[in-house]
Amino acid sequence: MVSNPSLVLNEIKNLEFQTHQAPEATEDFDVLVEVKKTGICGSDVHYYLHGEIGSFKLNKPMVMGHESSGIVSKIGPKVTSLKVGDRVAIEPGLPSRFSDEYKSGHYNLCPHMCFAATPAPEGTPNPPGTLCKYYKCPEDFLVKLPETVSLELGALVEPLTVGVHASKLANVKFGDVVVIFGAGPVGLLAASVATVFGASAVCVVDIFDNKLQMAKDIGAATHVFNSKTEGGYTQLVKKLGKSPTVVLECTGAEVCIQMGVLALATGGRFVQVGNAQGYVKFPITEFATKELQLFGSFRYGYNDYKTAVALLEKNYRNGKENVIVDFEKLITHRYSFKDAIKAYEEVAAGNGAVKCMIDGPE
Amino acid sequence: MVSNPSLVLNEIKNLEFQTHQAPEATEDFDVLVEVKKTGICGSDVHYYLHGEIGSFKLNKPMVMGHESSGIVSKIGPKVTSLKVGDRVAIEPGLPSRFSDEYKSGHYNLCPHMCFAATPAPEGTPNPPGTLCKYYKCPEDFLVKLPETVSLELGALVEPLTVGVHASKLANVKFGDVVVIFGAGPVGLLAASVATVFGASAVCVVDIFDNKLQMAKDIGAATHVFNSKTEGGYTQLVKKLGKSPTVVLECTGAEVCIQMGVLALATGGRFVQVGNAQGYVKFPITEFATKELQLFGSFRYGYNDYKTAVALLEKNYRNGKENVIVDFEKLITHRYSFKDAIKAYEEVAAGNGAVKCMIDGPE
Amino acid sequence: MVSNPSLVLNEIKNLEFQTHQAPEATEDFDVLVEVKKTGICGSDVHYYLHGEIGSFKLNKPMVMGHESSGIVSKIGPKVTSLKVGDRVAIEPGLPSRFSDEYKSGHYNLCPHMCFAATPAPEGTPNPPGTLCKYYKCPEDFLVKLPETVSLELGALVEPLTVGVHASKLANVKFGDVVVIFGAGPVGLLAASVATVFGASAVCVVDIFDNKLQMAKDIGAATHVFNSKTEGGYTQLVKKLGKSPTVVLECTGAEVCIQMGVLALATGGRFVQVGNAQGYVKFPITEFATKELQLFGSFRYGYNDYKTAVALLEKNYRNGKENVIVDFEKLITHRYSFKDAIKAYEEVAAGNGAVKCMIDGPE
Amino acid sequence: MVSNPSLVLNEIKNLEFQTHQAPEATEDFDVLVEVKKTGICGSDVHYYLHGEIGSFKLNKPMVMGHESSGIVSKIGPKVTSLKVGDRVAIEPGLPSRFSDEYKSGHYNLCPHMCFAATPAPEGTPNPPGTLCKYYKCPEDFLVKLPETVSLELGALVEPLTVGVHASKLANVKFGDVVVIFGAGPVGLLAASVATVFGASAVCVVDIFDNKLQMAKDIGAATHVFNSKTEGGYTQLVKKLGKSPTVVLECTGAEVCIQMGVLALATGGRFVQVGNAQGYVKFPITEFATKELQLFGSFRYGYNDYKTAVALLEKNYRNGKENVIVDFEKLITHRYSFKDAIKAYEEVAAGNGAVKCMIDGPE
Repeated sequence: MVSNPSLVLNEIKNLEFQTHQAPEATEDFDVLVEVKKTGICGSDVHYYLHGEIGSFKLNKPMVMGHESSGIVSKIGPKVTSLKVGDRVAIEPGLPSRFSDEYKSGHYNLCPHMCFAATPAPEGTPNPPGTLCKYYKCPEDFLVKLPETVSLELGALVEPLTVGVHASKLANVKFGDVVVIFGAGPVGLLAASVATVFGASAVCVVDIFDNKLQMAKDIGAATHVFNSKTEGGYTQLVKKLGKSPTVVLECTGAEVCIQMGVLALATGGRFVQVGNAQGYVKFPITEFATKELQLFGSFRYGYNDYKTAVALLEKNYRNGKENVIVDFEKLITHRYSFKDAIKAYEEVAAGNGAVKCMIDGPE
Repeated sequence: MVSNPSLVLNEIKNLEFQTHQAPEATEDFDVLVEVKKTGICGSDVHYYLHGEIGSFKLNKPMVMGHESSGIVSKIGPKVTSLKVGDRVAIEPGLPSRFSDEYKSGHYNLCPHMCFAATPAPEGTPNPPGTLCKYYKCPEDFLVKLPETVSLELGALVEPLTVGVHASKLANVKFGDVVVIFGAGPVGLLAASVATVFGASAVCVVDIFDNKLQMAKDIGAATHVFNSKTEGGYTQLVKKLGKSPTVVLECTGAEVCIQMGVLALATGGRFVQVGNAQGYVKFPITEFATKELQLFGSFRYGYNDYKTAVALLEKNYRNGKENVIVDFEKLITHRYSFKDAIKAYEEVAAGNGAVKCMIDGPE
Repeated sequence: MVSNPSLVLNEIKNLEFQTHQAPEATEDFDVLVEVKKTGICGSDVHYYLHGEIGSFKLNKPMVMGHESSGIVSKIGPKVTSLKVGDRVAIEPGLPSRFSDEYKSGHYNLCPHMCFAATPAPEGTPNPPGTLCKYYKCPEDFLVKLPETVSLELGALVEPLTVGVHASKLANVKFGDVVVIFGAGPVGLLAASVATVFGASAVCVVDIFDNKLQMAKDIGAATHVFNSKTEGGYTQLVKKLGKSPTVVLECTGAEVCIQMGVLALATGGRFVQVGNAQGYVKFPITEFATKELQLFGSFRYGYNDYKTAVALLEKNYRNGKENVIVDFEKLITHRYSFKDAIKAYEEVAAGNGAVKCMIDGPE
Repeated sequence: MVSNPSLVLNEIKNLEFQTHQAPEATEDFDVLVEVKKTGICGSDVHYYLHGEIGSFKLNKPMVMGHESSGIVSKIGPKVTSLKVGDRVAIEPGLPSRFSDEYKSGHYNLCPHMCFAATPAPEGTPNPPGTLCKYYKCPEDFLVKLPETVSLELGALVEPLTVGVHASKLANVKFGDVVVIFGAGPVGLLAASVATVFGASAVCVVDIFDNKLQMAKDIGAATHVFNSKTEGGYTQLVKKLGKSPTVVLECTGAEVCIQMGVLALATGGRFVQVGNAQGYVKFPITEFATKELQLFGSFRYGYNDYKTAVALLEKNYRNGKENVIVDFEKLITHRYSFKDAIKAYEEVAAGNGAVKCMIDGPE
């Protein structure tokens, strides 16, 4: 029996190190991964502070972590695409392979989804999180990292994929003028995707200049716009020189949703990424008379993870000199596994981290 | 000089018969049509009663009418697809032939659109309406009526095309379960289009049983649902046996928009057809987590008019016996041209008409 | 141990009744079906006569049959959508649930596909066929038959689905003018699908008048065209009154492929369904200058089987009176299981059958 | 009356300088352009040497040239987007503004297209070419050149747009592996577009190493493949490390078309750009069983010219340092207007030019 050090959330603000039994990779396509890097997500902090998000309520201890990379430690008998020692990004949500959603490429919508570190209902065990030493995952939910992509960037793949999925829904392409609301990690990563996908102009909107500066610093945007100091949608359009063709809304804030709809060019596409709070006052007449298109975006589905890894690879293909987006600057804080609780406490206290990384247990 | 009897709205509740000079069909592709049938639209009545809709404000006399059919009376030198005596449906909105919107099939969004009986700004003459004897129109904005389609049905093409455009935006097809909110003329016609497009189930929702009965009577729907007496979205889904895959919202009412979003299956498509009142409280979280798609629909564009006429033709192709939707039942009231003012007064007073037809001047 | 009478093809022209051991439905989503009706497919006859199709070569005995319906006889512990006694259509090809093709809705292209009655390479057992008493299948590859759809029509679902897949690839919809080459079972069924999908005109092309008469008799086509006696693509277009917008090519014959490309309207869509013989002389310049679109079609994928069953249901929804396509007329010959070898012999000898049905073993 | 020096092709190998009367820009949206740079196209040389291409036959003198840029010299009364002195790329084909093709974005397919320097039938005057001093064009068929795009690059926009159109048909995007057959100007430009559109790998295939070297030199490709010395589709796939997802075929050669179909991944997209010679032996079975998609590509349509200019702009946006594709290297030969006949003679003789530019008349 192999021991598996894990970080467990027992209840609100009660994190604890526990040692569980490591899973075994016995089924045909099983892979055992030794976790090396794990990012802290806003949802992790929310569970830590509040114990729930929407209908997901923590009702028993749960291993934390769902943004991870690691090294293949063991493989099942039919695994062919990975071998022991390979570096991988871990896709943390496992849908039912029998569901219509899975079969049609939209497994993010599968009602039987089992997503790491997301509380299960009473009577069902919580899905295992990735903040542990050994994590078991089927071969096809791991993506091998190219040589040029570090394990830290591998742990960034999960939130990056959220941006990939949104940009695919919006069909962002050469010629598009894309406005992203929100300069948090998801907004910055969505902007980065739009940039690599070839958008002609990418503008990040936020109310904090330091966050907007980050968008510029990493090369994720051609423009930034402070909606607190620079004005509303009219000023935004003026600054861009034209109405945007795409909005990626990563805040969930009513005021941003409205501003996005008003700014969009006729026929424009709007993707709602952020977790909005239930209902918002929505400019439906403006929306209809401009024949806009609104797409809901929830996590990510078929092929998105691979796209995200390919995107990191492209960036570094010809060495540092040709970096389009400097993703590494997004990782502002780093902790060892034994300091993981401290990491949560500091992020929860508002330490200004963009993305905080925790090493795997030694 | 040929005289052109016309029905003119001078100002609110002030309709007058006037005799203008008839237009001449002198340019290459001009066609002069003798108008034979004109339907009254909700927007006509709104201008009659209120003098404005949104930013369109009546500031000078305007010839009424935009839902018309007629007979070709004269053709320009390069017209080849029509000849004198042909029966035609008249498409009432003329976009700029130089605009991007026109070139890309979305001429409904052309900012230079000149739409019959829609007030122009100060300093610009009002576009001519069709409630007159002679109306000039370029060849390609007329659709020849097949033998089996009457002039009255030809005057129904305009609102029918609104439904065609919405159903195309939603890509309604075999297998879809379509819910239409609103059993007014647009809702009934949108339901009819969904039915002819092959939807597996079509349900019209309204709060008046007599309107819902009309949906059943004409064959536009497989189901009807009275949202006042039968309940909310849960009951609607129960009655249908499954969640709808498409919603065509033809009321603009907040409560309907909400009910539609809540009822839709994951990945479902929602088309906003009705003129909503500015802002509505919109269930954005439900929308995003189900990855729904919302499409604004405004009038109609490339090829929609032809589709609407083909739809009427298909219906009657093999004679009355094979009618899928009995569109003629929608025409509940008829007036001669000399009674046109009375027609407006009675419709405005609420005479229960579904669609009211006015003959052309003799 | 339950016995399983089966019809086995030992080698070319050597069919034999054997009694095998019946499979057991022990896994979570397993279903055991008692087969009731099985159609004979052209490929079955081809294996019977020639022992191979392309790279698929018979090298050991194989149970025949892949067009079947039956009655649920036993269900695995997690099956929820079916119960013992339900009547079902059997989808005969099982892809890998881990493949990219399966995940993206294109499981017909999965390289690990296990398809009933299709010879496996040396060293691999042949996939079980359906011409036996008991056939095991996962729940989600069975489609429950509605009350109005007979078991015989249930056995027609397999070839009908080939037509569904092709019509979906071509996006056949209201307004389309569709030409189908070939009036064999697949061509007739593809034409039927195009008709139910709402195509405005459907024309079947063949060189035998009796086959074309069948297309008319069952209501699958608005037009038929005998390319031997009526001429080439010019005459075809003349007869239709316009160039087709869609071609569904179900013969694989070079002359038909050429005729289809020449007949198509600019921007038209061409789906290659038939098994063409390797290479054909293809009018590539005509194809390019008209900006045509060609789509290869191979079997069927996600949701196609359900669509086919829904299509049969729609047809009979309101009783015989409202039949759009009379599919039952396609079943021209019927045999008991004990006469199954005779059935093969007679079909192979050319008995003029459109579709021949064999009962399941008693 | 203003004189208009022009280069005229009287008949095969008979070019002559003539002085015509300059056109006048009198209609609302007319613009008079003083032509500054004109590229020589393969079709120009073909008319020079053979007097015909397909059904286009030279039967009277014709002003040459259709790949041009220039400076606005006069504008019509309603022109708003351009002013005298603006530098523009000239789109040389004018469709009918009344055609369905124009209205639906596919004006390249308009049967009434009037394309510069393309012979008209007997009885119709030849469309004016651009190898003259003054060329008249409607405002919306001119694209203003950004400051960073030279007039020479402006004259490259026409062939570049052919590549833009093909890449749009193929929906080339991030993640695609694109193979281009042919390293002539169109192939090199198509590869450049695929690169700027974000393709993950771009491979140009030809049989001349020096042409392939050019693809590398300008940055249009990540890979090149000499199909004469390196092998067939198997070696091509091996070199790429995976099967391509997109083929842009710019040669029209049967052997390339076959190689492209065989190389493509299942579900791959193939765009036929090159002028193939009538019929080719086409691997239809391979095509169908991999469910490939073939798209014919003919010239370019709505918005393609603007995309091409934006593409040149993006390239130079931040100065020479950030050039993705070095388009200027494609211009290998330059002539003054008075040496234009010599230019034709030398290109026709095979001077190894990639793109040859002729100055406008002084």
